[in-house]
Amino acid sequence: MPTLGHTQYGKAETRVVRVFRDGDPHEIVDYNVSAALSGDFADTHLTGDNTQVLTTDAVKNTVNAYAKEAGEAVRHPESFGLALARHFADDVPQVQRARVKVESYPWDRLAAHPHAFSRRGAYVRTATVTWQDGRAWVASGVRGLIVLKTTDSEFHSFYTDRYTTLPPTNDRVMATEVTAQWWQTDLDADWGASFDAVLVTLSRTFAGHHSLSLQQTLFAMGTAVVEEQPGIGEIRLSLPNKHHFLVDLDPFGLKNPGEVFHAADRPYGLIEGTVRRDGAPEAGPAFDPGQGW
Amino acid sequence: MPTLGHTQYGKAETRVVRVFRDGDPHEIVDYNVSAALSGDFADTHLTGDNTQVLTTDAVKNTVNAYAKEAGEAVRHPESFGLALARHFADDVPQVQRARVKVESYPWDRLAAHPHAFSRRGAYVRTATVTWQDGRAWVASGVRGLIVLKTTDSEFHSFYTDRYTTLPPTNDRVMATEVTAQWWQTDLDADWGASFDAVLVTLSRTFAGHHSLSLQQTLFAMGTAVVEEQPGIGEIRLSLPNKHHFLVDLDPFGLKNPGEVFHAADRPYGLIEGTVRRDGAPEAGPAFDPGQGW
Amino acid sequence: MPTLGHTQYGKAETRVVRVFRDGDPHEIVDYNVSAALSGDFADTHLTGDNTQVLTTDAVKNTVNAYAKEAGEAVRHPESFGLALARHFADDVPQVQRARVKVESYPWDRLAAHPHAFSRRGAYVRTATVTWQDGRAWVASGVRGLIVLKTTDSEFHSFYTDRYTTLPPTNDRVMATEVTAQWWQTDLDADWGASFDAVLVTLSRTFAGHHSLSLQQTLFAMGTAVVEEQPGIGEIRLSLPNKHHFLVDLDPFGLKNPGEVFHAADRPYGLIEGTVRRDGAPEAGPAFDPGQGW
Amino acid sequence: MPTLGHTQYGKAETRVVRVFRDGDPHEIVDYNVSAALSGDFADTHLTGDNTQVLTTDAVKNTVNAYAKEAGEAVRHPESFGLALARHFADDVPQVQRARVKVESYPWDRLAAHPHAFSRRGAYVRTATVTWQDGRAWVASGVRGLIVLKTTDSEFHSFYTDRYTTLPPTNDRVMATEVTAQWWQTDLDADWGASFDAVLVTLSRTFAGHHSLSLQQTLFAMGTAVVEEQPGIGEIRLSLPNKHHFLVDLDPFGLKNPGEVFHAADRPYGLIEGTVRRDGAPEAGPAFDPGQGW
Repeated sequence: MPTLGHTQYGKAETRVVRVFRDGDPHEIVDYNVSAALSGDFADTHLTGDNTQVLTTDAVKNTVNAYAKEAGEAVRHPESFGLALARHFADDVPQVQRARVKVESYPWDRLAAHPHAFSRRGAYVRTATVTWQDGRAWVASGVRGLIVLKTTDSEFHSFYTDRYTTLPPTNDRVMATEVTAQWWQTDLDADWGASFDAVLVTLSRTFAGHHSLSLQQTLFAMGTAVVEEQPGIGEIRLSLPNKHHFLVDLDPFGLKNPGEVFHAADRPYGLIEGTVRRDGAPEAGPAFDPGQGW
Repeated sequence: MPTLGHTQYGKAETRVVRVFRDGDPHEIVDYNVSAALSGDFADTHLTGDNTQVLTTDAVKNTVNAYAKEAGEAVRHPESFGLALARHFADDVPQVQRARVKVESYPWDRLAAHPHAFSRRGAYVRTATVTWQDGRAWVASGVRGLIVLKTTDSEFHSFYTDRYTTLPPTNDRVMATEVTAQWWQTDLDADWGASFDAVLVTLSRTFAGHHSLSLQQTLFAMGTAVVEEQPGIGEIRLSLPNKHHFLVDLDPFGLKNPGEVFHAADRPYGLIEGTVRRDGAPEAGPAFDPGQGW
Repeated sequence: MPTLGHTQYGKAETRVVRVFRDGDPHEIVDYNVSAALSGDFADTHLTGDNTQVLTTDAVKNTVNAYAKEAGEAVRHPESFGLALARHFADDVPQVQRARVKVESYPWDRLAAHPHAFSRRGAYVRTATVTWQDGRAWVASGVRGLIVLKTTDSEFHSFYTDRYTTLPPTNDRVMATEVTAQWWQTDLDADWGASFDAVLVTLSRTFAGHHSLSLQQTLFAMGTAVVEEQPGIGEIRLSLPNKHHFLVDLDPFGLKNPGEVFHAADRPYGLIEGTVRRDGAPEAGPAFDPGQGW
Repeated sequence: MPTLGHTQYGKAETRVVRVFRDGDPHEIVDYNVSAALSGDFADTHLTGDNTQVLTTDAVKNTVNAYAKEAGEAVRHPESFGLALARHFADDVPQVQRARVKVESYPWDRLAAHPHAFSRRGAYVRTATVTWQDGRAWVASGVRGLIVLKTTDSEFHSFYTDRYTTLPPTNDRVMATEVTAQWWQTDLDADWGASFDAVLVTLSRTFAGHHSLSLQQTLFAMGTAVVEEQPGIGEIRLSLPNKHHFLVDLDPFGLKNPGEVFHAADRPYGLIEGTVRRDGAPEAGPAFDPGQGW
C-alpha cells in the first residue's frame, strides 16, 4: 500500500492592494501573496475527512484581513509575510510549517501628484517567509531586473571538447535578468532600506566589474552584498546569459565593430551560484526552492 | 473560382540592439521590428512563382543592416521605421505599400556608469510607419504604461437595465494600462522630445483629472495631447479598466474605508476612443489596426 | 478644440463555463467573451454625464445571464455571440453597433467518463459577431492550431536584392500556427458542423499540398475552404512561418540530411492573405481587425 | 571573506526537433532541453579562470549533435536525457553532477498524412535526469494537463476559524491543471508505454473518483499510479484548484442549479503532495525542485 509523503497546500496568488490614506500624499503597496501550510493534514488525503483543513478560501480572507489588521507590518513584503506566517503557525494548531511568499510590485509617484502612481516595471521585489518549529526564516529577493553592459566583459581561455566551436572574445555585450534571494539573519531589519541597499550593490557591482565570465560577475555581486550587509548570511543568484550575438554584416559590405546585435530568446546560458558569509549558520528552509534546477 | 484579396507578408519581430560607441558614455537602442509588404505578389499565391518575392530573410537582413547604415535615423523608432519603409517602397519595385512597426524598449543608465544599463520596464514605446503611393504616415505610441489613482474618481448616475447591479460610487480606485497611438502630421519632428512630452501630458492629465468616468478621463487625456502638440492630428487610446474591488472585511469585524482592494485580472472594462484635432485631415492608414476590436 | 472620434467600450474577457446537466453524459462549453458597444455615448466622454452608459459590469452580468437564458444558442460561440449582440443592439436604445467576440476552448471527454473532461489544447475556436443597423455579420475562426510538415515544401527562385543571402531549398520543414477567420454568409448555419468541416479542410490541404511557398499554401487552404463551404464568402489567414533551421553538424563530423532542426522563436515570417468567393458581397465589418498588421 | 557555495550552470531551453525519415510515415520528436552542470568550477567564479569551463555554447551543440548521434535514445525524453547526462558526467572530467531536463511536445499525425503533424497541445511530457557519482535518477512527468469534472466532488465539514466564510458544498465543479513527476526506479523502462500508462491512470482516477477534497483526489491519483506501475517509487503531484464559482443569477430572476460558472484566474488553491511506494528507497536528487513552494 502506498504511503503519503510530504504535503503542503494553501492559496496562491492573492492579489491585494493596500492604500494608506491617513497621510498626504497617499501611499500604496501592491502584493501577490501565496501561502502554503504543512502539518497534520493526512486525514483529508487518506479519507477525505476535512476536520483539520483550514480552507484555502480562509487563507485568502486572512491575507486580505491582515492587509488591514497588521498595521505597519503591511508596508513591506518581509514584515507582512512574517505576520501572516506567524498567524498560521501559531493560531491554527494543526499547522507545523507555514511558508508565505510575497511578490511586491513597486510603484512610483506619477507627475508629482499626491494620489497618482505609475508601476515601475523594472523589477519585482520578493520575500519568502518560513515559520517552522517556532522559528522564522526570511529570504528577501528581486526578480526581473534586466541589466546590460556594452563592454568590460571578456570570455576566453575556456575548456574545449569535441563540441566546442565558440570563438573566444575580449569584448562582448553582457546582459542578464537578475533573480536573487538573500537570507536575512536579522528579523528586525529595516526592510525597505535593506532592499534598496542590496539593489544598489547588485547594480553597482554588475556595472563596475570587469568580467572574465558571468560566473565571476555572479560571485562579485554576491560577495559585495554579503560584505556590505552584515544581516545577510547567504545570497543565491540565478543569472541567465541573455545572449546578444554580433550580426554578420559582411555580406552587405558593412563593418560591425560591436555595434549591431541580435538579442536572442532561446537557448540561453544559465549561471547559478551561492555566496555565503564566512561562519554563517545553515540557511535551513529559508530559500524558495523554486529558484534553481 | 475563389479570388485572392488583400495580402501582405514580411518578417515579424526582428530583435536588434544597436550600441553607439563613438561617444562616452555609450548609448543603446533596443528594438523589435516587424515589416509587412504589399504589392505585386499574387503570383506566389496563385502558382508558387516566387520571382517577385523578396524573402522575409532579406527583410530581416535589411533591418540589421539599416541598424548600421541608417545613421542618426537609428536613434528613434519613428525615424528608423521611416528609413526602412522608404527603402522597401522605393527600392523594391514590386512593393506598393510597406508598413514597419517598431517596439522600442527604453533603458536607463545603471549606477551612473558610462557602459551599463537597466531596462526601464515601465512601458514600451512604439512606432508604426506606413509608406504608400509615395507618402508616409507615422503613428507614435506607447503601451504597457500602468497608472493608478487612489481618489478623484467617481462613477454613478449611469443607465440601468435589467442586468445592472453595480452600486454607484463617489470615490474609487481607478487604474489602467495605457495603450495609445498618435498620428504625427509632421514627419520631421524631434521624435524623442515629442514622445517625452506626450508621456508627460498623458501622465499629468491622468493624475490631475477629477474623473466621472474612465471615458471622460480618456477624452481629457487625448484632448490635452492634441492641444499641446500641434504636430499631432489624432490620438487613439485604449484603456482597460483594471478593476480594484473593495474587499468586504465585515465578516471579520473590520472596517474597510477604501484601504484594502482586490486587483482583479478578468474580466475588465475596455474603453477605447479617438480624439482628433479640429480640421485635421483623415489619418488614412496611419494607425496600427491591431489596436481596437 | 479637439473633437471626439470613433469610440467603443464594453467588458472584455468574461470567462463563463456552462454545464448542460439535463442529459447523460454532461456537456460543457467554455467561453471567453468580450463585448464592445458603440453608439450615443459622447456625453460621458465630453462631460462625464453617464446617463446613457450601460455599465461594463452589466455587460458582464448579461453574458452570464445569457449563458442560462439563451437556450440552445449557448452551445456554439457563433449563436451565443448572435444572441448577445442582438440583445445589446435591440434592447439598449443608445447602442448603434455591438460587437461580441467569443473564444471557445474545446474539451474532450476524459476516460470515456460521462462527467469528466480534459481541455483539448490544440486550438481555440473563435467567433466575432457584429450587429449594426439591424444587420448581423458572423466571422468564425480558429487560432493556435500548430501544424508542421516534414517534406513537400520548397522555396527557391525568389527575387534577390543586395540584402538577400538565403539559399534556395527544394525540401524544407514547414510549420505554422494557423489563425483564420471566415465570414459566414448564412446566419442559420449548423455552427458545429461548419467549424469541424473547415478544420478538416484546412488540415487536409496543409498536409497534402506540395508547397512552393507558404503564400501558395495559404491560397490553397483558403480556396479549398471557400470551394467546399458554400456559406463562406471570404476567409482571412494569418500564417507565421515558424522557422525550423537545419543545424550545421559538420563541425562534429556528422551529416544532417534533414534530421536535426532548431525551432526558432523570433523573428518569424508572417504571411497574411484573403481568399474571396467569386461574386461574394463585401464583408463589411465582419472581421475582427485585430488580425493583421 | 564570503565563500562560494553550491553552483551550477549550463544551457537552458535548446529547442531541437528531430525528424525520423528512414521509415514511412515520418516521425518527429520536439524537445526543449535544459542541462545544468556542477563540479569543479570554482575557479571561474573566484578568479575568472575559465580553464575548466565547458562553454554553454558547447552544451547546446552537444544537445543538437546527440539528436543525431544518440540513435534510438533520441525517441523519448528520458532516454535522450540519460544519454546527455551520462555524456556530461563521464566525458567532461570536471563535471560531478549533470542534470538534464527535457520538455517534450507531443504531435499527432495530421489528416492521416505520412509527413504532416499537428501539435497536440493538451499537455507537455517532461523528464528530469540526474547523473551523480556514477548513478542516474530519472523522473518522468507531465504538466499542463487541464481536467475538469462537473459532479462527484464535495467539500464540507472543514475546520473553521475567524476568517472562514466558505459555505460547504455537496456538489461542485472541480478542475485542475496537473503537474506531476514520478521517479522511475527502472532505468530500462519502455518510456513511451510507461508514460502512456501513467497518463491513463491519472486521467481515469481523476474522472472516476468521488472526491471529498482535492487532497483526497490527489492521493487517489498518486496511489493508483504507484500501485499499477511497479517501476515507479514515488510520485509528486501539484494540483492547482482552478476555481469555478457558481454565478449568482438571482438578481436577474434566474435559477442557477449548477449550470453557469465563472472560471477564475487568481487566486487559486494549490494542493501538493507525495505518494511513495511502501519500502521504496529515498528518491535522492531525482525530482526537479522547481515544482513545489
